[in-house]
Amino acid sequence: MKKMINNPDNIVDEMLNGMVAAHPDYVKRVDGCDVLVRANGSQGKVVLISGGGSGHEPAHGGYVGKGMLDGAVAGAMFTSPTPDQVYEAIKAADGGKGVLLVIKNYTGDVMNFEMAADMAADEGIEVEKVVVNDDVAVENSTWTTGRRGIAGTIFVHKCAGACAEKGGSLAEVKAVAEKVIANVRSMGMAIAPCTVPAAGKPSFELADDEVEIGMGIHGEPGTHREKIRSVAETTDTLLEKILAEGIYNAGDEVAVMVNGLGATPLQELYLANLRVSEVLAEKNIKVAKTLVGNYMTSIDMAGYSITLLKLDAELKELVNAPADTPAFVQV
Amino acid sequence: MKKMINNPDNIVDEMLNGMVAAHPDYVKRVDGCDVLVRANGSQGKVVLISGGGSGHEPAHGGYVGKGMLDGAVAGAMFTSPTPDQVYEAIKAADGGKGVLLVIKNYTGDVMNFEMAADMAADEGIEVEKVVVNDDVAVENSTWTTGRRGIAGTIFVHKCAGACAEKGGSLAEVKAVAEKVIANVRSMGMAIAPCTVPAAGKPSFELADDEVEIGMGIHGEPGTHREKIRSVAETTDTLLEKILAEGIYNAGDEVAVMVNGLGATPLQELYLANLRVSEVLAEKNIKVAKTLVGNYMTSIDMAGYSITLLKLDAELKELVNAPADTPAFVQV
Repeated sequence: MKKMINNPDNIVDEMLNGMVAAHPDYVKRVDGCDVLVRANGSQGKVVLISGGGSGHEPAHGGYVGKGMLDGAVAGAMFTSPTPDQVYEAIKAADGGKGVLLVIKNYTGDVMNFEMAADMAADEGIEVEKVVVNDDVAVENSTWTTGRRGIAGTIFVHKCAGACAEKGGSLAEVKAVAEKVIANVRSMGMAIAPCTVPAAGKPSFELADDEVEIGMGIHGEPGTHREKIRSVAETTDTLLEKILAEGIYNAGDEVAVMVNGLGATPLQELYLANLRVSEVLAEKNIKVAKTLVGNYMTSIDMAGYSITLLKLDAELKELVNAPADTPAFVQV
Repeated sequence: MKKMINNPDNIVDEMLNGMVAAHPDYVKRVDGCDVLVRANGSQGKVVLISGGGSGHEPAHGGYVGKGMLDGAVAGAMFTSPTPDQVYEAIKAADGGKGVLLVIKNYTGDVMNFEMAADMAADEGIEVEKVVVNDDVAVENSTWTTGRRGIAGTIFVHKCAGACAEKGGSLAEVKAVAEKVIANVRSMGMAIAPCTVPAAGKPSFELADDEVEIGMGIHGEPGTHREKIRSVAETTDTLLEKILAEGIYNAGDEVAVMVNGLGATPLQELYLANLRVSEVLAEKNIKVAKTLVGNYMTSIDMAGYSITLLKLDAELKELVNAPADTPAFVQV
């Protein structure tokens, strides 16, 4: 294993401190916790909290800021944060108007965030939750009952966060999050696995000419392995499964995300986006917004995922609303 | 070679089309050229044009937009753009107030941008140039007389671009660019080489426990190879050489960039930034701004560079001024 780290056991702690050192105007760390909250707090607004295992940077701490999250909980690498940590995040971020937890659908995350919600409710904090399950690749997986939550989660942060920022009630913010979840689908592929530092070896093995289609963001198995093909053909395969959901039809408007998994050159992501734009144009699906970059990574995995979000007037306004966070700024 | 591409010969063309498809509100392509300019043009302002070989994405096309560049020329992979292409960029972007070329110091780039400047001058366009040479690692290199231009170039785009955006004259914009160049220094390291698609094999070889210190963004040799050490120790080595320049002293304010070379997980960049912040704090050098991410890459190289820019009141205002480009947005 070749990595630029100090001690594998201290990565999350040091990474969070490195983030605060870089972005002190945006985020501060909750004392003694692996939790980032907004530097200037979130008084008087509905609060959004997300998180999960570390290794998906900039998710989720990079999205703490105006128009997106109010708090992010960082578990150990690829490991759900404990209920205590989520509870501390809720208490630290709470602005007095209620809290929405945005959870990616992994069994541990759902359980631990729910326990934290109960703890907070016992203290009189109003807490709601949504579970993101945008990955169409497989129906159940290593750590999941049902579909996994992956890069589509960023669109939940973005749209629900914009609703909260403009004064939406907890019910309104939750309704937006649920609308995004109903209309967002993703699927990914890997040409090289990631290596969890403490494990010291790749999470799976691929032959020199082989790729994995539909794997999860922790290296969970996908739908199949195949000989490497062109980015256009591979993109077609991913899009085909996403479009088979029946959500995205001629005349619809969508937001697109082409997401790098950590070690993918940006040039390859733009090649993938070119094909996405061609296929959607052929189908008369209009692209109203496109994000290309590393939004939900898998440490040093090489590959990408594609996400589509169907937009109505409300979601179009929210996805285009201003945001100002360490990893996502929009005027 | 494992890459998500179509045909190695078409990557630049397809990448530029993928960028335009993703960011039509920001950039458009000049017909028949590997040149991106602002979608809404640059009338009535001094124009900044940069570029160079492809493979450094988001540099430079990702920085075309308000507050930064007006045009970017994309050469073949790791290959200087031809004078003709630079000339087309100048003509397409020209807003009638003069043009500043921001050139990274590589022999081919300098020669070809200068030839293009001469061609444009013959047509009555006022053209000035600056050459960025921020890499302190080596004094001459494979394609360079003098020091190489690397990630510090982004600070030239940012500060000179902000000056141009607020109505600075060509002389004023050039003076800002020269001030940045005088005050910016960088150095990088690699734990894994990049692979140029058309070459099909890594640009250099490293043993499993070996890293290269001070290599260039095309894989040019650095100062030495060494056994892999911790990110803190490695960061110390890079910073030591940057600080030996004598530019950054107790009481100074600086902007910091921790730049990923393409395949480096963001978590590692934040670990590096933590060490940078510690060392600068020890030396009583104040960090006024920090950028952490993939700003000037080397295709799929793994590793990072550190850049320091000493700020005076003018540069501090300019580096913090708003920007709105595909790869860099600041409120």
